[in-house]
Amino acid sequence: MDNLNLGRHISGQFNEDLERVINHVMQMGGLVEKQLSEALLAVCDADQDLARKVHKNDYQINKLEVSIDDECTRIIAKRQPAAGDLRLIMAIVKTIADLERIGDEVKKIAQVALESLSGQQKDLLINLDNLGRRVLEFLQATLDAFTRMDAEAASAIHQSDTKIDREYEALMRQLMTYMMEEPRTIPQVMSVIWSARALERIGDRCQNICEYIIYFVKGKVVRHTTEDGIIKTE
Amino acid sequence: MDNLNLGRHISGQFNEDLERVINHVMQMGGLVEKQLSEALLAVCDADQDLARKVHKNDYQINKLEVSIDDECTRIIAKRQPAAGDLRLIMAIVKTIADLERIGDEVKKIAQVALESLSGQQKDLLINLDNLGRRVLEFLQATLDAFTRMDAEAASAIHQSDTKIDREYEALMRQLMTYMMEEPRTIPQVMSVIWSARALERIGDRCQNICEYIIYFVKGKVVRHTTEDGIIKTE
Repeated sequence: MDNLNLGRHISGQFNEDLERVINHVMQMGGLVEKQLSEALLAVCDADQDLARKVHKNDYQINKLEVSIDDECTRIIAKRQPAAGDLRLIMAIVKTIADLERIGDEVKKIAQVALESLSGQQKDLLINLDNLGRRVLEFLQATLDAFTRMDAEAASAIHQSDTKIDREYEALMRQLMTYMMEEPRTIPQVMSVIWSARALERIGDRCQNICEYIIYFVKGKVVRHTTEDGIIKTE
Repeated sequence: MDNLNLGRHISGQFNEDLERVINHVMQMGGLVEKQLSEALLAVCDADQDLARKVHKNDYQINKLEVSIDDECTRIIAKRQPAAGDLRLIMAIVKTIADLERIGDEVKKIAQVALESLSGQQKDLLINLDNLGRRVLEFLQATLDAFTRMDAEAASAIHQSDTKIDREYEALMRQLMTYMMEEPRTIPQVMSVIWSARALERIGDRCQNICEYIIYFVKGKVVRHTTEDGIIKTE
């Protein structure tokens, strides 16, 4: 947490507030990571009990989002932070919203474990699992960059999202071909498609978090810098 | 804007800040609504030029999000609002994030207009258009509740999302059946499926905005109140 410059605050109480809230975000991130990891395992092993556990445990993520959000509002009201400190709090408020939504996507992934897939259909899960592992690494790297408030790492992670997109597109082509060859299996394959889509969205949400890290460290908005977007620096 | 109680603020400057930022949110909302309406028209009339225009104009929504976000941070830093005022600013920060994402979903809807669909496939668009109209009304009602900061309306809108879900599920069943009967058309039908999904997500995001309105007016968090969620009041 070097980049947080906790030492520079005159108020020790404010430092404590900040450290506590950041610890809670890390706890939330750890939980989201665990949920994704278990959802992938559930799909891979067709473990319905584990899939149900993932569904059930999502409430813990929701609960943390609500309490961290509340904590942030209280800190702003009580400590009236300015400039960098306020930017950090705003970055946290946005980060937890994305983490919560990642939790929702994870539930959709676990859903595939509840489908009855035939042996041949299970082959489709191999590439879903590959995509899943890549996304899990991406999430881990994002959370790591958040913990260190490392804008350079965040920027590198942000750019590497294209690898996920490429893998996602290849998987999608494979799934569409399969459906065209075996139309009877469309309902089952669609559930794999929703999972793949959920994984791709988790990648996008990690990118959002990377943008918040860069915003906090550099005070620069890097959202909407793609094809039809804008680049805006403050 | 009665519920904003602008009259009670001692600082006239703060009132002006608040009014300005809320006007910008309404401007952003109006733009999102216009984009959705044009995207639906583009799909219905297979108007590729209009679809491209929708794609191009999304940058205006992105730009507004960045500037309103900036405005909110400045207000917090300068005016150090407490309690209800701070809650309003936080509700705005979250609302514009959802509006911006609705803009992204709208681009996906417009995408269908760029596909070459046969006459028979175009029949599938009738129900997509019906779902689209329902979602457009839902968005308009949400923005209206936001303008009036009307928690009761927000609560009623929130509950009526189930109608969208039902219509979405019926459409999805129709599309899957069509794919099973005409597997050659899967790539085209998939683009209709992504559009339907985008519409369903817009409904979800409107629900989020309703939750922020209720949070502002009642100081009560109503997120995560569904099946496996939690109900938390502050």
